[in-house]
Amino acid sequence: MTLPVPADVISRLKAVLGEAGWSQDPERLAPKLVEWRDRWSGSTPLLALPKSTAEVAAVVGICAESGTAITPQGGNTGLVGGQIPEGEVLLSLERMRAVREVNTLDDVLIVEAGLTLAAAHEAAEAAGRRFPLSLASEGSATIGGLVSTNAGGVAVLRYGTMRQLVLGLEAVLPNGEVWNGLKRLRKDNTGYDLKQLLIGAEGTLGVVTAAALKLYPILVSKAVAIAGVESPAAAVALLGRAKQASGGAVESFELISRLGIELALRHIPGAREPLESRPLWYVLIEIASGEPGAAEGAMERLLEAAMEDGLALDAAIAQTETQAKAFWALRENQSAAQKSEGAAWKHDVAVPVSRIAEFIETAGAALRRAYPGVRIDAFGHVGDGNIHYDVLCAPGGDAAAHNARREPAAHLVHDVVVGLEGSISAEHGLGTMKTAEAMAYKSATELAAQRAVRAALDPKRIMNPRVLF
Amino acid sequence: MTLPVPADVISRLKAVLGEAGWSQDPERLAPKLVEWRDRWSGSTPLLALPKSTAEVAAVVGICAESGTAITPQGGNTGLVGGQIPEGEVLLSLERMRAVREVNTLDDVLIVEAGLTLAAAHEAAEAAGRRFPLSLASEGSATIGGLVSTNAGGVAVLRYGTMRQLVLGLEAVLPNGEVWNGLKRLRKDNTGYDLKQLLIGAEGTLGVVTAAALKLYPILVSKAVAIAGVESPAAAVALLGRAKQASGGAVESFELISRLGIELALRHIPGAREPLESRPLWYVLIEIASGEPGAAEGAMERLLEAAMEDGLALDAAIAQTETQAKAFWALRENQSAAQKSEGAAWKHDVAVPVSRIAEFIETAGAALRRAYPGVRIDAFGHVGDGNIHYDVLCAPGGDAAAHNARREPAAHLVHDVVVGLEGSISAEHGLGTMKTAEAMAYKSATELAAQRAVRAALDPKRIMNPRVLF
Repeated sequence: MTLPVPADVISRLKAVLGEAGWSQDPERLAPKLVEWRDRWSGSTPLLALPKSTAEVAAVVGICAESGTAITPQGGNTGLVGGQIPEGEVLLSLERMRAVREVNTLDDVLIVEAGLTLAAAHEAAEAAGRRFPLSLASEGSATIGGLVSTNAGGVAVLRYGTMRQLVLGLEAVLPNGEVWNGLKRLRKDNTGYDLKQLLIGAEGTLGVVTAAALKLYPILVSKAVAIAGVESPAAAVALLGRAKQASGGAVESFELISRLGIELALRHIPGAREPLESRPLWYVLIEIASGEPGAAEGAMERLLEAAMEDGLALDAAIAQTETQAKAFWALRENQSAAQKSEGAAWKHDVAVPVSRIAEFIETAGAALRRAYPGVRIDAFGHVGDGNIHYDVLCAPGGDAAAHNARREPAAHLVHDVVVGLEGSISAEHGLGTMKTAEAMAYKSATELAAQRAVRAALDPKRIMNPRVLF
Repeated sequence: MTLPVPADVISRLKAVLGEAGWSQDPERLAPKLVEWRDRWSGSTPLLALPKSTAEVAAVVGICAESGTAITPQGGNTGLVGGQIPEGEVLLSLERMRAVREVNTLDDVLIVEAGLTLAAAHEAAEAAGRRFPLSLASEGSATIGGLVSTNAGGVAVLRYGTMRQLVLGLEAVLPNGEVWNGLKRLRKDNTGYDLKQLLIGAEGTLGVVTAAALKLYPILVSKAVAIAGVESPAAAVALLGRAKQASGGAVESFELISRLGIELALRHIPGAREPLESRPLWYVLIEIASGEPGAAEGAMERLLEAAMEDGLALDAAIAQTETQAKAFWALRENQSAAQKSEGAAWKHDVAVPVSRIAEFIETAGAALRRAYPGVRIDAFGHVGDGNIHYDVLCAPGGDAAAHNARREPAAHLVHDVVVGLEGSISAEHGLGTMKTAEAMAYKSATELAAQRAVRAALDPKRIMNPRVLF
């Protein structure tokens, strides 16, 4: 689909980037052309490595003028193929990693797009603050990629996704102009909020070069617990109580099934049975507060009341940081444990919180009917309605056969999700993997509006052309 | 500028609306054609009063086809003239006031656009929840207007503006099609977030017909205090400490000057001196928490430490709900007190929190130089950098002469604001009043992008055509 890039365009790009600013070396390119799980691989005529916003603008300007397509790539941690070029110029901001400013009066951290999330966390902590976005790939994922995919993670329940955490952006628009929207204002009503268009646009409306991120206080009081419940419906009811009991201080509320615990016990070194009663479902709860003792108090009240009236079957509050980490490891190692167990279909979906139980039941019944023997490992962010709904092959089953059924199985799950007014991509985006499917689910009105906005800002469709509508 | 609406278009509109669905009665129209402070008045050939989303779509469809301009109006509480028609069809959703759903598992309230904010608060409270957006005009302001102007108010510091409080929208786009984006998801990454375009678009990208709003727990622990500080810089420093001490549980942090207190004492019945030491500057602080006693504890710790090292000169914590209300009345009656004092120029501006002190100093010096004798009543939301920067004429001064200087004075203040990377409209929007001025301050890149988006969705520019770019 993407046409070969003319030699003179490549020459002009090299000229504006300077010697250290580009590469065509296959070894240098290789890690950027393969998705980390090996599900997609691609090619590019040139890796552009600008070192400044001005250089990004020069690159995009040349591409705009010549109609040359660009694939922007952050930390290459994406799970839907959106960062892998197929003949486009590959644009990486890995040389743009400056922390431009930390200001504790404004509670803002201004960083360039190539900085990793882990480095942003460090910069915030060094200033006595916290940037709350938190996810597994934070050592590699970059701020530019996280903004462009509206990243989520385990603290969305309280702090929102990247969309709620960005105060301002600097970006190069598809025409090659620099848009300076790097504000640090909490209130600004002077026209359309263009940064909200760029957030989650998966690189199709421009290249994010820097972001002003909101900082929060570090919370002194923290409580982590694991509780057993009878069903996903009980987990949702307990979530409601936790939000009330803590006054909205729930940081995370994660579901794990008994199967998920068993997988962790089997494959993760050091994993231990968290509750001897071995319930069918578990929730991992974290509450945090600025008032010493408040989180601990809220957790105790919550679990005491829930045990008393039978909503919680069993519960353990972590007594040490080590124990809290052990509880979290059970949740965080679900993907790793699955990997050791064999092939899995993965679905990153969201439904209204009130319909989580219905979703798990309906999708489960449909899958078991269509694919007898499959094992369902549903886990994730109950508070966001965001279930990582993973389906393992039967014990000892054939991985290749299981993998071959991935697409029809996804359609089946996504039909249930859409029927419950949910989303077929809660936090990973559409990329190249889900774009066509999303198109089938969206209304003609919605698609026409999305396409009109894109055409208005990128009439030649040079920015990540195979992604979104 | 707006052309007369052809008679056949009026007839078609009347036909789709039915007898109760429109008015041309001057008495019925009058209150909708005058801004409440009498700064703008207008005219319309027809007041359209649809009773359903389908009727809104029919109205917009006829207008789109015939190129007829529409001015949407909510509760007519706007302060920048955006809701007053000048020959356009006037569209009011006052008949669309249904509470469609309250769901405490999803923590969502779904209401139609014509419902007032006060009624939305009641619906939330009836379900044991809270919708935290709070502002003075909540008895009249409607959800549709509040969404379209990205309303702010006194709880933005903790909960954000309307932009952060909307989970989903239903709207009629400028082509007359209904866009169903009435989701209740916390995570959904499937393309551009169109609702974010509609929020704050001041009715230029479509008509919001319903909204899904986020609900929060009602907080059981609350503390209100008033403290004296030496300067705005000290107020900002105290804000930083309050956020840290409470772990982000500050609901409001409002600045009042000694002049503001004196105006309230002079003109507001029942107002009492809050601190006998009569400092130059005051801050009103509200902290709230879900943990019994936590807010009170945080407030005491905060003020004790601040008094000890001299950052706070004096302080009083409200001991009763009545006292808390009395403290708040001093802040809330600033506009009323000014009104009794004489003419005032008002500026709704925001600057980075770190530059509030510099703003107050620089703008004050410039104004006093240009207009000797004026009195500055700076008050408002320190936590958002949003200062209501109001300028009274000299005691006993000539109101007409003062009013005549409003525009050049506003330019002077706005130049200072923009120089400090601030916003000339923090929460009121641009309307017809500030559109031209905003145009002068924005970059060509920004304006071109804003215009391209508008033209993409409303090629005939029928929606609120005199507002925004």
